[in-house]
Amino acid sequence: MKSDSNKALVVLSGGQDSTTCLYWAIGRFGHGNVSAVTFDYGQRHRIEIDCAQEIAAAADVPHTILPIDSFAALGGDALTDSGIAVADIIDDETGLPNTFVPGRNLIFLTFAAALAWQRGIGNLVAGVAQTDYSGYPDCREETMQSLQETLRLGMESDIVIHSPLMHLSKKETIELAREVGGLEAMALTHTCYNGERPPCGECPACQLRAKGFDEAGVTDPLLTAP
Amino acid sequence: MKSDSNKALVVLSGGQDSTTCLYWAIGRFGHGNVSAVTFDYGQRHRIEIDCAQEIAAAADVPHTILPIDSFAALGGDALTDSGIAVADIIDDETGLPNTFVPGRNLIFLTFAAALAWQRGIGNLVAGVAQTDYSGYPDCREETMQSLQETLRLGMESDIVIHSPLMHLSKKETIELAREVGGLEAMALTHTCYNGERPPCGECPACQLRAKGFDEAGVTDPLLTAP
Repeated sequence: MKSDSNKALVVLSGGQDSTTCLYWAIGRFGHGNVSAVTFDYGQRHRIEIDCAQEIAAAADVPHTILPIDSFAALGGDALTDSGIAVADIIDDETGLPNTFVPGRNLIFLTFAAALAWQRGIGNLVAGVAQTDYSGYPDCREETMQSLQETLRLGMESDIVIHSPLMHLSKKETIELAREVGGLEAMALTHTCYNGERPPCGECPACQLRAKGFDEAGVTDPLLTAP
Repeated sequence: MKSDSNKALVVLSGGQDSTTCLYWAIGRFGHGNVSAVTFDYGQRHRIEIDCAQEIAAAADVPHTILPIDSFAALGGDALTDSGIAVADIIDDETGLPNTFVPGRNLIFLTFAAALAWQRGIGNLVAGVAQTDYSGYPDCREETMQSLQETLRLGMESDIVIHSPLMHLSKKETIELAREVGGLEAMALTHTCYNGERPPCGECPACQLRAKGFDEAGVTDPLLTAP
């Protein structure tokens, strides 16, 4: 299958990282060549999907929402199971944060690759990073490289996975967002693990976000949004 | 995550190949160590899922049915879209059979690996084969090896993917089924692309099945089933 190496599909979660990636992709591939996909996988906070829609609309790129109901059926993780409390804890047995859905990013990117295959799109862009996320093995560069090879073999494609944030700290991600013109869109993003808007400011996700903006010397547009 | 290298999860589609794998796994890992998973992905013939249930019940192994609604949303393939006729044709542009869902087996095995991870199961068994299926890149040994590596990296696991049929012809698969005591269960399997029971005998899937039994000199139990 010959796909267009000028076209890119961005995995857009509604958070600041994937939003930065969306603007990075627009800069890299050109506005008319970029589209976005968001997965409706039963996340606890539906607000993330609303945010992704608003962000895609603001950036004026085609946007697909793809349902994945299997995670809820797999069950037992804090991000999709509302019966499990979110806490900044590490599971003693697995050594992973309890927000870990095994292989979640592998699933997301494989579905994104299937969508890209059907549309003849040659590039995937994902906001995964191994900095600050060392607990998530499906975010690491080595995993992404192996997945790219698997997708190429399994779909007979020449798909390229881009992860522009892979080695950036939160501070550097904010700086990149500013560089690619994505800072304003940060007002539309969602980060809070507790699903609050304005954000709770207390949960680990809010604190990590605040730290990034703080270190970059930038005011978070979300905090001053009307 | 430490998983049990004595335990195996079989991806059971309800067809003859995965049923052979189920009995192979019981022989290899022991009856009490084997369980099965079937994906409810909007296949045109729901009878496949019923067959899988009957087969798992007959083999007396725990059975999970996991929904995947995303393929229907991705759309446009003959196995899930009832608006597209099934024919033994090759797509001119992609060179693949029109029953190809890009990356379908990658998705199935990644979900199966997630389930195995949650249950501490160290082995996956899949009825993929590159013989007779050269049109499906996600069935090839090279793809399976790459996927195993991706799953290990992405889930920090030591999962092993077994594909005992990889290099077997249909004839040899029938012989293996006989060897591992799975021949009787063939009466419960479903193969026909047209979803007929008794099978239509005309579609490419029925013809391939008949050829295998014919060459192995074995009467297909499905054809003499009451």
